[in-house]
Amino acid sequence: MNTNKRILDTATPWMIESGPQGDVVLSSRVRLARNLKSRPFPAHANATEKIKIRQEIMATLSKDKYNLTNLEEISSLERELMMEGHLISPQIITDPTGRGVAVSKDQLLSIMINEEDHLRIQAIAPGLDLDNALTKANEADDSLEEKLDIAFDEQFGYLTAWPTNLGTGLRVSAMLHLPGLALTNNLPRIFGAVSQLGMVVRGIYGEGTEALGNLYQVSNQRSLGRTEDEIVKDLDTAVKHIIGEERKIREALLSKSKNSIEDKVRRSLGVLQEARLISTNEALALLSDVRLGIDLDLIDKDLKPTIQALMQITRPAHLQKFMGNSLETEVRDYYRATVIREELAKEG
Amino acid sequence: MNTNKRILDTATPWMIESGPQGDVVLSSRVRLARNLKSRPFPAHANATEKIKIRQEIMATLSKDKYNLTNLEEISSLERELMMEGHLISPQIITDPTGRGVAVSKDQLLSIMINEEDHLRIQAIAPGLDLDNALTKANEADDSLEEKLDIAFDEQFGYLTAWPTNLGTGLRVSAMLHLPGLALTNNLPRIFGAVSQLGMVVRGIYGEGTEALGNLYQVSNQRSLGRTEDEIVKDLDTAVKHIIGEERKIREALLSKSKNSIEDKVRRSLGVLQEARLISTNEALALLSDVRLGIDLDLIDKDLKPTIQALMQITRPAHLQKFMGNSLETEVRDYYRATVIREELAKEG
Repeated sequence: MNTNKRILDTATPWMIESGPQGDVVLSSRVRLARNLKSRPFPAHANATEKIKIRQEIMATLSKDKYNLTNLEEISSLERELMMEGHLISPQIITDPTGRGVAVSKDQLLSIMINEEDHLRIQAIAPGLDLDNALTKANEADDSLEEKLDIAFDEQFGYLTAWPTNLGTGLRVSAMLHLPGLALTNNLPRIFGAVSQLGMVVRGIYGEGTEALGNLYQVSNQRSLGRTEDEIVKDLDTAVKHIIGEERKIREALLSKSKNSIEDKVRRSLGVLQEARLISTNEALALLSDVRLGIDLDLIDKDLKPTIQALMQITRPAHLQKFMGNSLETEVRDYYRATVIREELAKEG
Repeated sequence: MNTNKRILDTATPWMIESGPQGDVVLSSRVRLARNLKSRPFPAHANATEKIKIRQEIMATLSKDKYNLTNLEEISSLERELMMEGHLISPQIITDPTGRGVAVSKDQLLSIMINEEDHLRIQAIAPGLDLDNALTKANEADDSLEEKLDIAFDEQFGYLTAWPTNLGTGLRVSAMLHLPGLALTNNLPRIFGAVSQLGMVVRGIYGEGTEALGNLYQVSNQRSLGRTEDEIVKDLDTAVKHIIGEERKIREALLSKSKNSIEDKVRRSLGVLQEARLISTNEALALLSDVRLGIDLDLIDKDLKPTIQALMQITRPAHLQKFMGNSLETEVRDYYRATVIREELAKEG
């Protein structure tokens, strides 16, 4: 095993940082959907048309600022890595032709080309910081609109492939870690309230993905008829409500059953430090426990970047990139356990 | 917590040594039942008579060689400690009056006074070493018989309170660690065969006690009509058969599922190193796993004395002696986890 290069360095940088409300919120994300005028939406374009659209868009993007990738020109493993790094969506990795992505050097900004829309501008900020993400996305949008002819209607706003994105074309979301609410079976209640506010809750890789490691993505449902500021403010309010509930539960756990909760999170750390076989799902569950332990001051805070990175790099593609290709589950589970153990050992 | 004194030092010395066949056999034990002529058996003697008998016996025992204890003169905690150290039997700790024990300085020889018989001479050797234990018990017996008038019948041999002990008055036993046979559900088959050979299998503290931590005590059933050598040889043969079966299973586990078995024993070590609450039974189960890991060369051998000592000192009385009295289960579980964690941390 290549132990010279720190596997930690293969994680997306913002994944290992902590931002505002970092005890509950991993990251904030803003995504703008944009389309070129007089061009078929990607779902209705053939390969040649899509490639032409991609060329037109990429020609406006500076190579000093972005790494530009034509998705059919990289391996499926590289595409999966980008997906696990939240740079592209799961939907497009199996049909990459004519699709592309531009990723800023700090990976906080990415522009997907020919996903459902011609352009999906995504900006990310660690912690709860939607305003910051929105500002960055708008800057990228302004710069693109100077050079491209973007479809906009006085009545509907930005025209998009799906009606739910009409209007501002804005989707805002936050990735939340909710182990306290999960442990006490309070998630259905909270998510019920959130959906009544017009928000939707998903697993960590978006629509149709599982909620692993007690990670949940909360986002706005609709874009039409609302201003950007309203959308951001609504989500911010909903997320702050969830943060409050999660913190309340955590405090109750600490005051009523500190020994049990410390026992639980410490045992998970012990298993991560010693196990020889760990599945993806178990790894995320154990890492979630340890993350909770850190946020409750029961486990050393210095471990947090490692734990956050491990949440990403123990996913199948990252592991495969590092360890080489193996299709056998036991071999992958063995490597996963090895990576986790060695990274935790480096932290002493 | 008093961390200056190593809690390891409170374990019975022979418990932490490894003897012959130490991968499976913790210890060998030989016990001779003897009674004084013309005195009522303890069950039929009143307190005054028992005290007189005890005085008579203790007068023959050198204080240079033995620590002499009248059991009603020590606390119930001290009696439980002796029981957990295998120096006295569970049966007499609740009715100590007129009873006593002489323990050699190395704790390998103990003489119980007024248990079921007036004298029960017990010799212990680490590992499988019944001959050694028998020699020591016989030396102690010879020395006692020089000074005391022991009941012996030409036809029945040594007279004892229970007919099963008639004849040589000899019971030989071995304490076995059988995690492989337990894991693969082979114990009923093995124990069935053993009982057909006239042996009996019990838990770690003798008759009526649970089998914890995959520890089993195998002993001869009868004493009458057989010579000492026959009894010892029969048990030795039976134990070697069990050792062979246990080793065969362990080898099969290693060759067929090394990763799984290493994962299992390492996880148990991880939990012991990090848990904050551990019950007696869970502690023994986890320690059993780690002991197996050591014997399979999957965990560092240097840890073995600590693991063997922890198997004893995490028992309730030892824990209470070290930590002070607490009747609350959670507090005891907390101290147990603390002791285990600190001792394992000392081994690095």
